[in-house]
Amino acid sequence: MDGLNCVIPDSERVIFDSNIEEKYLSDTLGRLRGRAEALVFPESTKEVSDIMKYAFEHGIPVTPRGAGTNLVGSTVPADGGIVLDLSRMNRVLEIDKETFTATVEPGVVLEDFQKLVESEGLFYPPDPGEKTATIGGNISTNAGGMRAVKYGVTRDYVRGLEVVLADGSVAELGGKVVKDSSGLSLKHLMIGSEGTLGIITKAIVKLTVKPQTSLSVLLPFDDLHTGIRAVLNVIRGNLDPTAIEFVEKKVVNLGEEYVGLSFPYKDAQAYILLTFDGDDTEEIYKRVEKLKAVAEESGAKDVLLLEDQKTIDAVWKIRGALVKAVEAKSEQEPVDIVVPINKSAEFIEYINRLEQETGVQMVSFGHAGDGNVHLCVVRGSRTQEQWEEDRRKVLAFAYDKSSELGGLTSGEHGIGLSKKKYLKKATDPLNLQMMKQVKLSLDPKNILNANKIFD
Amino acid sequence: MDGLNCVIPDSERVIFDSNIEEKYLSDTLGRLRGRAEALVFPESTKEVSDIMKYAFEHGIPVTPRGAGTNLVGSTVPADGGIVLDLSRMNRVLEIDKETFTATVEPGVVLEDFQKLVESEGLFYPPDPGEKTATIGGNISTNAGGMRAVKYGVTRDYVRGLEVVLADGSVAELGGKVVKDSSGLSLKHLMIGSEGTLGIITKAIVKLTVKPQTSLSVLLPFDDLHTGIRAVLNVIRGNLDPTAIEFVEKKVVNLGEEYVGLSFPYKDAQAYILLTFDGDDTEEIYKRVEKLKAVAEESGAKDVLLLEDQKTIDAVWKIRGALVKAVEAKSEQEPVDIVVPINKSAEFIEYINRLEQETGVQMVSFGHAGDGNVHLCVVRGSRTQEQWEEDRRKVLAFAYDKSSELGGLTSGEHGIGLSKKKYLKKATDPLNLQMMKQVKLSLDPKNILNANKIFD
Repeated sequence: MDGLNCVIPDSERVIFDSNIEEKYLSDTLGRLRGRAEALVFPESTKEVSDIMKYAFEHGIPVTPRGAGTNLVGSTVPADGGIVLDLSRMNRVLEIDKETFTATVEPGVVLEDFQKLVESEGLFYPPDPGEKTATIGGNISTNAGGMRAVKYGVTRDYVRGLEVVLADGSVAELGGKVVKDSSGLSLKHLMIGSEGTLGIITKAIVKLTVKPQTSLSVLLPFDDLHTGIRAVLNVIRGNLDPTAIEFVEKKVVNLGEEYVGLSFPYKDAQAYILLTFDGDDTEEIYKRVEKLKAVAEESGAKDVLLLEDQKTIDAVWKIRGALVKAVEAKSEQEPVDIVVPINKSAEFIEYINRLEQETGVQMVSFGHAGDGNVHLCVVRGSRTQEQWEEDRRKVLAFAYDKSSELGGLTSGEHGIGLSKKKYLKKATDPLNLQMMKQVKLSLDPKNILNANKIFD
Repeated sequence: MDGLNCVIPDSERVIFDSNIEEKYLSDTLGRLRGRAEALVFPESTKEVSDIMKYAFEHGIPVTPRGAGTNLVGSTVPADGGIVLDLSRMNRVLEIDKETFTATVEPGVVLEDFQKLVESEGLFYPPDPGEKTATIGGNISTNAGGMRAVKYGVTRDYVRGLEVVLADGSVAELGGKVVKDSSGLSLKHLMIGSEGTLGIITKAIVKLTVKPQTSLSVLLPFDDLHTGIRAVLNVIRGNLDPTAIEFVEKKVVNLGEEYVGLSFPYKDAQAYILLTFDGDDTEEIYKRVEKLKAVAEESGAKDVLLLEDQKTIDAVWKIRGALVKAVEAKSEQEPVDIVVPINKSAEFIEYINRLEQETGVQMVSFGHAGDGNVHLCVVRGSRTQEQWEEDRRKVLAFAYDKSSELGGLTSGEHGIGLSKKKYLKKATDPLNLQMMKQVKLSLDPKNILNANKIFD
C-alpha cells in the first residue's frame, strides 16, 4: 500500500494500518467492524480516480464512505483494503437559480446543504432523519425521509452524477436537464447502489422553491388500524400532505420520557401526524378543513391543529427522538421494511403479536404515507448469545411477514452487510443473479464495496 | 423457425416470412424497414418466456413491439429473426384503490387506460402526445408528455415490472410499495431501455386522484426569448402549473391552417401556453392571479384565461396537431432534444438561424417547462439524396448545439436506430461502453432488440 503515498503525496491524508481510527472501520451503530490497510481522504475527483487506478491495478478492495451514518454496515470494510473517506470533498460548487439545480461534491452534509439553499429561497425536499449524513451517502442509499409523501425520495432529485468507476475512469451521467430518454439509465442504476458500482464524486440535484409556510396536524385514534384506514382516506381526498407519520401510544410514551415533553392528547392508542406546506396560509387551512371532515368520518377522536409553538416543538421533538429514546435504554437493531400502504396496520399488528409471543420488545413507528415502517428490535438485558438468537428469530418472522404482504427488505436504509441475508431470503435468486451480473459488468475485479447487498 | 409452431400452437398467432405485414417491420414513420422470419402474438407471460427460451437456444434476434408508435426505429427488426408483438396482452389486471396502483399487461393502450382509471375517479398523470401507444412502449422509452412539469414522466409512475429476460427467465422487479432501497434498481435500469434488456410483460403503475378541474392560460409575447424568461419566473413563483408549452407564431400558423381554427391573440411572435389543475376553482384562480403579475412583469403582452370552450378547443387542437400539420405538407424528421430549461430560447434561436442559413425548414415547439424541444426537420420538395444530405447536415448542427448547451439527445422519444449516431457523438465513449457491458451482462447472446441505442 505504500504506493498510495505517491498517489496522494500529502501524508496527513493517507493513514495506514493501526493508525486508522476505529470509527472508520464501522457504520454508525459500531457493531460490525472491518479492517483496513489504508484510510485515504481524497480532495478531488482526480485523486479519487488515481486511488481507484491504483486499487484496480493491485486488486485492492475499496470501501467508500461519507459521514458514515449508515445503519446497515455499508461502510464496513469487510475485506480489508482501502477506506475512501469523501467527507473532505464537501463544496457546494454551484447553485443555479435558472435551472433550479445545485452541483455539489459528495461530502456536503445534508443539514448544511438544506440551510444553504433555504437561505437562497430555494428548497431541497428530501429530508432523511439523519441530518449529518452526506448527500453522497443519501444518493448511495436512495434515502427517503418524512417529506417523501409529497416530494418523493432522493432518487427523484438527482439530475446528474459524476462517478469514478472501479478502474478509475470518470463517467458523467445525466446533467442539468429535466428529462432523459437517451439510452440505458446508468444514473438510476448508480442511485441506491451503496458504492458497489462506482464512487460518486459530484452530483447535480434538483431544487424547488421553498414553501412559505407549513402546518402540522395531530389525529388521535383508538387503535392503529383505524388510523391507517384514515390515512388511505386522506390520500384519496387529494389533500397533498407533505408528511404522514404514524406512532403508537406506547412508543410516544418512550419518546415523552426521553425528551421530557408530552403529546397534547393523551386518551389515544395511536396517532397520525401530518404536515401540510404551501405559500398560502388560507389555502392550507382549506385543505385542513377537508382533512377534518375526512378524519372525523374515518374515526379520529379529534383533529388537533398544532398552532402553538411549544406544542409543535414537543410533538416533533418526541417524534424525532424515538430511535434515540430506544437506544438510551438498550442496544437495538433498526429495520426499515416497506409494505404496500394499505398493509402497514396489518404488519404492525403482526409485529405487536410477535412481541407478545416472543417477549422481544419491538418499537415501531414510521412513514404511514408510504408504508415504510421503522422497527427497533430491542436487546434489553440479553446476553450477546441470547440477543443474537432472539434477534435472528424475530427478524426472520418480520421479514417473512413483509414478503407475504408484498413488501420489500428496505425502504430507505439500504441492504449493506446486515440486511443481506434478509434480502437473499425475500428476493428471487434470479434478481440477485441479475444484480451480480450487472455489478461484475462494471466492476469485473469486484473491488468496489464488495460483498455488500449480495455475496 | 418452424419450432415456433410448437411454442405457440395457434397458427393464427405465428406468421412467417412473406406473410408478415409491412407495418410490423418498421416504426410509425415507416422509413426504416427491417426483415423478420417470424411475427408472434403471445397472449401470456408464459408464452413470451417460451418464445425467448426458443430464441435464446437458437440465438435468434427478437424485436419486441407494442403499438409500434415509436419515432426512432426502436421496433425495426434490423437483424431479422422474430418480431414479438405484445398488443394482445392488453388486460388491465387490477385497479387497486387502496394502494393507488394499477397492474396492467404491456399492450394496454394509453388512452384506454387513462379513460378507465378516470372513470374510477383516479388519474394516471403521464400524458405522452401519442395516445394510441401502449403502456409497455411508454415504459420502454420513459415517455414524457405535457403534464411532466407537475407530475413527472413515465419512470416516476412505475412501481413494479415483470420482465422476461433474454433466456426466458421471468423477473419481478419492485412491487406495490412506494419506496425501495433493496439493492441495485433493476427496475429503473429496465425503464427506458427500449426492449434491449428484457421484455415487459406486466407493470404495476402508480395512480393518483383525478383533479376536479383545470384551467388553461395563454401568454402572448413579442419574441420567444422573453417568453422563455417568463417561464423561469413562473417556476420561481411556485405556481405549480401542470404544463408549460411554447410555440412560435410561425408554427401556430401551420397548425391553424391545418385544423381550420385560430389562436385567440394574433399580434405576437411567440406563445406560452399553461395549464393549472386542482380540486378547488378558487385556489386555481388565485394561482392564476399570481401568474398575471409574474407574466406582466416578465413582458407578456396579455394574459388570456381560456374560459370559453370553443377557444380552449381551438388552442389545444392547434397545439396537438402541429406534427400532423407539418406532415400533411411534407415528410419530416422528428427530433426531441432536451436542454437545461434556461437554454431553450438560445437553442430555438440557434435553430431559427440555422433554418435561415441552410434553407432547411425546421418547425420547433415543445415543453418549455422542462427544456424538451420538439423539432420537425422538413423535407419539402427535396430529392431523396438532397434530403438525406441536408438532414444529416442540420441534425449534426442541432445536436452539437444541444451538447454545447448541456443538453441530451432525447428527452422522451428514445434513441432506437435513427438517433444512434447522434447519441454516439454526444456521449462520452465510456458511457456507451458501460451501457454495452450492462446490456451484455443481462443478454449475453445479444438477441434482445440488438443494435438499438448503441452498436
